Amino acid sequence: MLTDDEQRGSWVRQTGTNLPKVGRYNRAVVLDQIQLADGISRVEIARHTGLTPQTVSGIVRRLLDEGIVREDGPSRVPSGGKPRTTLRVNADAGCAIGLHFDPAELTCAVVDLLGRPLVAKRRPTPPDTDPAQVVAAMAELIADVLAEADVPRSRVLGLGLATPGPIDQDLGMIVAPPQLANWTRVPMKRMLSDATGLPVTLDNDATAAAVGERWSGAGRGVANFAYFFLGTGIGGGLILDHQVYRGGSMNAGEFGHTSVLPDGPECYCGNRGCLETLVNPSAIVANVHRRLAERHGGSVLSEPFDRDPTSVDHAAIRVAASAGDPLAAAVIDEAAAHVASVAVNVANITDVDLIVLGGHGILHVEKRYGDAVASALASRPLSRHIRRVDVALSPLGADAAVVGSAALVLHATYSPQLSALIAD
Amino acid sequence: MLTDDEQRGSWVRQTGTNLPKVGRYNRAVVLDQIQLADGISRVEIARHTGLTPQTVSGIVRRLLDEGIVREDGPSRVPSGGKPRTTLRVNADAGCAIGLHFDPAELTCAVVDLLGRPLVAKRRPTPPDTDPAQVVAAMAELIADVLAEADVPRSRVLGLGLATPGPIDQDLGMIVAPPQLANWTRVPMKRMLSDATGLPVTLDNDATAAAVGERWSGAGRGVANFAYFFLGTGIGGGLILDHQVYRGGSMNAGEFGHTSVLPDGPECYCGNRGCLETLVNPSAIVANVHRRLAERHGGSVLSEPFDRDPTSVDHAAIRVAASAGDPLAAAVIDEAAAHVASVAVNVANITDVDLIVLGGHGILHVEKRYGDAVASALASRPLSRHIRRVDVALSPLGADAAVVGSAALVLHATYSPQLSALIAD
Repeated sequence: MLTDDEQRGSWVRQTGTNLPKVGRYNRAVVLDQIQLADGISRVEIARHTGLTPQTVSGIVRRLLDEGIVREDGPSRVPSGGKPRTTLRVNADAGCAIGLHFDPAELTCAVVDLLGRPLVAKRRPTPPDTDPAQVVAAMAELIADVLAEADVPRSRVLGLGLATPGPIDQDLGMIVAPPQLANWTRVPMKRMLSDATGLPVTLDNDATAAAVGERWSGAGRGVANFAYFFLGTGIGGGLILDHQVYRGGSMNAGEFGHTSVLPDGPECYCGNRGCLETLVNPSAIVANVHRRLAERHGGSVLSEPFDRDPTSVDHAAIRVAASAGDPLAAAVIDEAAAHVASVAVNVANITDVDLIVLGGHGILHVEKRYGDAVASALASRPLSRHIRRVDVALSPLGADAAVVGSAALVLHATYSPQLSALIAD
Repeated sequence: MLTDDEQRGSWVRQTGTNLPKVGRYNRAVVLDQIQLADGISRVEIARHTGLTPQTVSGIVRRLLDEGIVREDGPSRVPSGGKPRTTLRVNADAGCAIGLHFDPAELTCAVVDLLGRPLVAKRRPTPPDTDPAQVVAAMAELIADVLAEADVPRSRVLGLGLATPGPIDQDLGMIVAPPQLANWTRVPMKRMLSDATGLPVTLDNDATAAAVGERWSGAGRGVANFAYFFLGTGIGGGLILDHQVYRGGSMNAGEFGHTSVLPDGPECYCGNRGCLETLVNPSAIVANVHRRLAERHGGSVLSEPFDRDPTSVDHAAIRVAASAGDPLAAAVIDEAAAHVASVAVNVANITDVDLIVLGGHGILHVEKRYGDAVASALASRPLSRHIRRVDVALSPLGADAAVVGSAALVLHATYSPQLSALIAD
């Protein structure tokens, strides 16, 4: 909790900028263009960014010297003009480690500068919820992944950690994450940095995944998009005006805790009828089990349910729904309709260009969720006569959070951030 | 509708910055500090903005030369230090005209540089919905207000026009505003500029009101806030990271069209159970009339209703509720509970520091709405253990949209806008 003074202080403060900040910002803008394009020339960069050819040349020269960018031969020859050298990001110039901390599973990956995973490993989160033991398990997994990737430590830019929210980013602590009831204000960032010797960037899992989508997924180059992360919980991330939007307390994008049914079941968060309460894996499983117990029509799940109800889990339900089983499909479509309602609310509030759906909770039923959201976005937002809000399924799928946690490092290091332009 | 190319173009484009842009931005940052503070010294400005004392001095000298800022004597003498000159905005150095176009009423005001109204006038909107006639009525009202304010034309910075959304800001057109069914794609900005000879800034009424709150109301200096405008319709505006957030198509903040009851009545917007459908003045009046007709308990409204049902209008209901009439209060509290639900959703999605409630639709019952929203924000957002989301009632009240439309001009002229820092 901020004191009144701290809160007031952050309100009135709006900082100016200066030449070194401008230089860093323009460098990042140029690198962003090179990273987003599949081959781009200096002239094209100047045209896209409004920077002078001289400024672009100077920045590109330094990026080449540092080895972050490479020249890829004269691939585009406009008629009558001289050949233009194509620039690409030198994917091997550095790498980042991503660690996704899910209450059930730790996933760790090393990614190159283009956000492509080189090695990924996963292991169960120690059931003991003692933070020190969890951190030890994390450090072990990171060491394994680094050894297998065979990347020299000097090329590792840093470690990105994606955790369930809410978090306190300034203090690097996890604040009472809902599924870890005993974890209050754990200084994760410092603990993990001490254990690994690496600089740690912390963010909530859905924001990390959104950054991953912006870096190497469905949101590449998109100015405004909302990312829905459907996993054990339902999270969200927002990219607004090309920037990660985190909100005043670093907890924006909690789409899962917006209320869909005002008289719906109470959620642990304190709200009623939250999206997450209605469509989380346990709720979907309970819904299917209830219908199976009540013998609603035929379903391929009836027989396994009679034999062993626990075999009809979330994965089995999604597989059955994707094969067209009517009972499983009806339950998934109901969940998708709730997600679609929230997507419309998010579109009406944030006016984004695109909504990206991802996370392991929609594996096999991506199309059902995508269709429900697309159809709602085509018929319900107020601004639909002015613009189309697109829907995309995450190409990163279940890996979005771990790739995204590594992308946090790349993003912090390489993306044009207005906040840096005006930061102290 | 943007073409695919235009849309794609706006996606990948992220521009660099340069020295003249930086100079303009820093000038606006300094002016913003002077405008927000009730007297501030050069040293304090440097401390708040991170700019060097030399940069601040240079900018202040030019602002003094232009007459926008004035020195107000050595009012603060820190112990042992030399007296510091206090700087204030010279309120009379310029003025802006605001025009609020409500389907029922036109309101026009002239405000000074501090956003204080000098003269305000209103007149019914011509019932004929021919745009040309409405523009003629607007021009007449503007001429009246300017004559009464006795401000020389040379000191008028421009005209801000606040209209119901959705609008197309680039083209200056009003796109099928819901209460003006026959008005499709009217080039209001050009028509009004031709009729008055003034530069026109167009925005939707709720965004204009939010800018007004940021300039001279409850949002002065607040980094992140959401403004709820309760009038004939329900609109909203967002200030995120000190910037007006308009969204990808200039239609963000449509809080009134987020769905509260998924099985609720269909709204003209295409969605179901929208906040606006549930709590607009007609819905509140219909709800009270139904209860009066069904003889629910005693109410001071029963007798006037029996005499003449039309006398029990929205204003009469709000007055009765504010005096504690149980029937009127119950209906208002139900509406306030719906607004509170959406406020919680907006807090969970945008993570703002403050929610401001304004508009003529809550006159007399401000406290009932404010209390309902405050209590929901204290108990339901996910991040409530990390931070407090405040609620404020607009001090501008029913005038927020007209003051805000004038503030659009002041804001565009004088506020630090990151978009300007990176615009072409």
